[in-house]
Amino acid sequence: MQAHKDREGELEPLRWEESGYLVLLDQRKLPGEISYVSCEDYQAVVRAIRDMQVRGAPAIGTAAAYGMVLAALGFRGGDVEGFYDSLAEAADRLKSTRPTAINLAWAVERMFRKALALKRESLESGDFLKVKAALLEEAHAIAREDVEANKRIGELGAGLIASGESILTHCNAGALATVGYGTALGILRSAAAQGKVARVYACETRPLLQGARLTALELSREGIPVTVITDNMAGYVMRKGLVNRVVVGADRIAGNGDVANKVGTYTLAVLAKTHGLPFYVAAPTSTIDLGCRTGEEIPIEQRPASEVTHICGRRVVPEGVDVLNPAFDVTPHELVSAIITERGIAREPYVETLKRLVNPQIFDQGGRRGCQGF
Amino acid sequence: MQAHKDREGELEPLRWEESGYLVLLDQRKLPGEISYVSCEDYQAVVRAIRDMQVRGAPAIGTAAAYGMVLAALGFRGGDVEGFYDSLAEAADRLKSTRPTAINLAWAVERMFRKALALKRESLESGDFLKVKAALLEEAHAIAREDVEANKRIGELGAGLIASGESILTHCNAGALATVGYGTALGILRSAAAQGKVARVYACETRPLLQGARLTALELSREGIPVTVITDNMAGYVMRKGLVNRVVVGADRIAGNGDVANKVGTYTLAVLAKTHGLPFYVAAPTSTIDLGCRTGEEIPIEQRPASEVTHICGRRVVPEGVDVLNPAFDVTPHELVSAIITERGIAREPYVETLKRLVNPQIFDQGGRRGCQGF
Repeated sequence: MQAHKDREGELEPLRWEESGYLVLLDQRKLPGEISYVSCEDYQAVVRAIRDMQVRGAPAIGTAAAYGMVLAALGFRGGDVEGFYDSLAEAADRLKSTRPTAINLAWAVERMFRKALALKRESLESGDFLKVKAALLEEAHAIAREDVEANKRIGELGAGLIASGESILTHCNAGALATVGYGTALGILRSAAAQGKVARVYACETRPLLQGARLTALELSREGIPVTVITDNMAGYVMRKGLVNRVVVGADRIAGNGDVANKVGTYTLAVLAKTHGLPFYVAAPTSTIDLGCRTGEEIPIEQRPASEVTHICGRRVVPEGVDVLNPAFDVTPHELVSAIITERGIAREPYVETLKRLVNPQIFDQGGRRGCQGF
Repeated sequence: MQAHKDREGELEPLRWEESGYLVLLDQRKLPGEISYVSCEDYQAVVRAIRDMQVRGAPAIGTAAAYGMVLAALGFRGGDVEGFYDSLAEAADRLKSTRPTAINLAWAVERMFRKALALKRESLESGDFLKVKAALLEEAHAIAREDVEANKRIGELGAGLIASGESILTHCNAGALATVGYGTALGILRSAAAQGKVARVYACETRPLLQGARLTALELSREGIPVTVITDNMAGYVMRKGLVNRVVVGADRIAGNGDVANKVGTYTLAVLAKTHGLPFYVAAPTSTIDLGCRTGEEIPIEQRPASEVTHICGRRVVPEGVDVLNPAFDVTPHELVSAIITERGIAREPYVETLKRLVNPQIFDQGGRRGCQGF
């Protein structure tokens, strides 16, 4: 992986140090401070994901993959069943940190399957050297594939944007939410590189302000004009005609095209529909969960009340007052103009087109209704 | 006026001290601190309105009325023309503090007209004792009428709410935004007194968090169940079926029923329409500006960028990044189910019904199409 860049260019949310630990950019401290935390065991990765030092569906998936590597490296002794039990426990704990983003479960399960495939060899050899090496290689592959997928998403999505357009985005689906380049922001990067982007409007994204803190930071470091708005100004900017399209990321996409993403996404989709603006979702196919038929089946994480009641350590909601803090909401597929993945662009009927993207091998290459960009 | 209540019950945003100055509750410091500022000249009132120590359309109108009293009391010398010139200057400066809320101009102009009506007497007597006394009485009348209007709005609006309902509101249109009782919150107070209100959902209302800080404080002090949500959760709570209606205040209502109110109101109106929920605006008739034919003609105040870039003194938007900060947006009349005033409830066609509410004397008492509750 590349060395991190502190001063300019793309910020790197995570990197693996060859001496055997994971380094995470502490995203809670941005933009004021660029600092890193080291995770030397998987429990540290669990804490970092839960506390949102690392966030964004693809980034937490990859961090968790390296968490599985740390779990393997940290196992002491020669008991093969004990080794696999400890990996299973690490997998459970990593998956339970944040329930909504499917990439987390996807990455952890992929890592566990990799380990299981080598169980017979471990039993024969009586050591885990090969498993450990294979897990590290698998985590690197997940990281590498994520960046490749994002670049492809960026290329495909940029094709949907016309010259001189302004785009509204929510939260941070950028390099910081992934291993690099970003999904929604990958599209904006690619479109900006083609000279198409007049301006990006970034919703600040309460409660944790990922839009104000992270998206604005990423885009301004790349010289892409960006304006931060409070979330409640989205209707204002659309009614004023200031934006042409909405592009967001996703934490989980159900089989019918319903999209779970950062809370507030649904409101933007309703506003986009009302103003006749295209509403795009950008995500790797690992975000699609055909096991969830509709968005109703996607578990929505409820985060601590303190994220709403306190800002920068100061209480803004009176003592004793209730708050809600769902981290995500579900946008129904009818409001989604297109889902842009590394394997192509899906449109309605999503129940067909998403299946083709997830399992391209089982579909006749002749019938690609609703899919483009292969 | 009543003495203020520090511990429980309704908070009082302003009161006149008989020794000749205005006391304002410093709303910027709520809920953490209940403290007051004294305004001994009209310039202090100008600063308090501009810096939003006092806010809310009816409250700033009344504060400005007392500002006119202070301008009169502060005049030294016996030059009648000089006295009226200084009043005119105070009126201009008070009106220019915040351009959107029409109650401010309405109250200041009412005060100035009151003074002008006594100009001949001043010229004859060569002093201003009578004008000064009349201005103080007029300001007291504006304050008294505001509370009376709000109680009537509360009664009328409560009639629209069914038992067991939950209501979403935005910003603070409560006792703190008025002289007492509140407009939108007046309706919720009245409905709650009738045992109808299951819960109020209060949008926190970035950037200045009047919903989180002020509305939650008012309602919780009265024992009305309240849940604060970030502004971007409004779509989530509606889609979950958690709210039955939306009730907001207004800063200016155009002749066609378009409503300028705190930024984010328009987004809530679009969401309410999408979810089939009634969307009500509560305001005294002094908020209706027949001089503006449509919302397009309402000036929208742009506030300092620092309100968005900094929260509680800490920078959350990276240096050099642009922000928008319109204090208000305009909700088109098609999205407004009803406008609840102290003289009745207006519905479409607002271009007729609002005219009747503003000038009831010039209309035939027989034809009240669209108006109820007289």
